[in-house]
Amino acid sequence: MRVIVPFAAQTPKTRLEPVLDLDERKEFARVLLKDVLDAIEATDVEPTVLATAPIDLDVEVIVDERNLTPAVNAVLDESDEAVAIVMADLGLITSPVIERFFTLSGDVVLAPGMAGGTNAIVSRTGDFSVDYHGVSFHDHLAVAREIGATVNVIDSFRLATDIDEPADLLEVFLHGTGRASDWLASVGFSIDRSGDRVRLTRT
Amino acid sequence: MRVIVPFAAQTPKTRLEPVLDLDERKEFARVLLKDVLDAIEATDVEPTVLATAPIDLDVEVIVDERNLTPAVNAVLDESDEAVAIVMADLGLITSPVIERFFTLSGDVVLAPGMAGGTNAIVSRTGDFSVDYHGVSFHDHLAVAREIGATVNVIDSFRLATDIDEPADLLEVFLHGTGRASDWLASVGFSIDRSGDRVRLTRT
Repeated sequence: MRVIVPFAAQTPKTRLEPVLDLDERKEFARVLLKDVLDAIEATDVEPTVLATAPIDLDVEVIVDERNLTPAVNAVLDESDEAVAIVMADLGLITSPVIERFFTLSGDVVLAPGMAGGTNAIVSRTGDFSVDYHGVSFHDHLAVAREIGATVNVIDSFRLATDIDEPADLLEVFLHGTGRASDWLASVGFSIDRSGDRVRLTRT
Repeated sequence: MRVIVPFAAQTPKTRLEPVLDLDERKEFARVLLKDVLDAIEATDVEPTVLATAPIDLDVEVIVDERNLTPAVNAVLDESDEAVAIVMADLGLITSPVIERFFTLSGDVVLAPGMAGGTNAIVSRTGDFSVDYHGVSFHDHLAVAREIGATVNVIDSFRLATDIDEPADLLEVFLHGTGRASDWLASVGFSIDRSGDRVRLTRT
């Protein structure tokens, strides 16, 4: 199986602007990406990064300047084997959960993300295509049904949690097992338990 | 196994104040509770509601006016069989996921919730106690370790998603399989796909 990790090399994590500056966002995006690549490599699969610009990594990199949807569909079109697409910002990913995901049966296997997104896909059929705009999880279910594919959906908190917004950082801090939680601590984030609700603060 | 569903009968869902008025919050909290009870009953277990005030339901109700932590600990202390505690606001719960949870091995089995919470617990040891304040998931792991209990953690998006804040309603609307998503539609909520991000709006 081919495993693709799309990565927006130029505009990383814009919605984290309120809490991280541009250089930090770039660094954090790379740290998240590496956690995802590590988790995949530990399942004995060699991932390929699909980047919007050249990026220095010790895995195969395909550069495609287009948006996520056409870039991923180009890979799906060209491939004659099963393809997995795993988002680069899954800050709670572990090797066991990605292994569990890869081994689920089905022509199409989906991992829903928060707010209607699709955080990971396995496609074992040549007819499947992606559309990451809007409620992509429902759209991907609809595409799978249209082409008569068997569908499986994983129920995983770790795969559902993509790191887009400041509130998501708390989840990485609490449950992350890779570099990303260490990185957040290294730049001064810590947990504030003083109020009614647990929050991440920065000193 | 005894299955307890704690329910704050008087102050339901205060953090949904920006989008639902008091009567609506009361109604929605009941609808969520019923979805949780249904999912549990479908696993052939009879749940007991642990309510802060009398409430009319067709399952057993224990009334305990105290806060969540002492009320649940009183049940754990009294019980001489395994006890499960399942939060009443798990808007994505299904019978298969609660069945998967109940059948995991371990003296203590935990379902982490968003923002450090603990959304469901199975305790098969008399020594376990709860503390729902702060990062309760980490505290519950620590208690289990202290008493030498074997621990298991479920990785489930459906069990991690408790419905506290307006943003959580979108998840119920997108992934809920019970009454709660229908209820949200019935009071005028719908999905707005017009912007960059998917949002729930109310007409």
